[in-house]
Amino acid sequence: MVRTLEHPDPADLTLQQVLEALVDPVRRRIVTQLSEAADGMSCGTFDAAVSRSTLTHHFNVLREAGLIRQTYAGTTKLNVLRTEDLESRFPGLLPALLAAGA
Amino acid sequence: MVRTLEHPDPADLTLQQVLEALVDPVRRRIVTQLSEAADGMSCGTFDAAVSRSTLTHHFNVLREAGLIRQTYAGTTKLNVLRTEDLESRFPGLLPALLAAGA
Repeated sequence: MVRTLEHPDPADLTLQQVLEALVDPVRRRIVTQLSEAADGMSCGTFDAAVSRSTLTHHFNVLREAGLIRQTYAGTTKLNVLRTEDLESRFPGLLPALLAAGA
Repeated sequence: MVRTLEHPDPADLTLQQVLEALVDPVRRRIVTQLSEAADGMSCGTFDAAVSRSTLTHHFNVLREAGLIRQTYAGTTKLNVLRTEDLESRFPGLLPALLAAGA
């Protein structure tokens, strides 16, 4: 059985939820790192000075806000930024945030 | 004596403070209304379902984050969006947020 995680449709993304996700500097750092990793990153490879469980919480917030897509890969999760979905829903927002040093 | 209010220099604006200001929907609504008012708006003319003192707080947060410039105009304050300062510091961010329905 393939386990999957819930992801909101692009049309259901809200600016409120995206901003609530990105107001946290650790989550912005995750997004920045993902933006530089074309093939995504597994949860264990992030450079963040927080505990594993805190990191899991941050990934959940990012996934529920529609910023990242998470898929199971063996015993870990692979994370990719939903760049195209975000661009279609909020044109220019993610590039501007990344340029601002998100 | 002319009373003035403190405003951060464009170089001192931080993405953290801008996002903390804009994560609040009332403050985003103020920014949207200001973006449509070329000559600025006085505090009393805002369409927001909050008390006067709450509105004053929101304006202070927006000013301290560098999003608006406030000047005294008689017994009220005139508010203008710092569009050019924001564009120079965070290119594309404000237009993307406004397009997203900020």
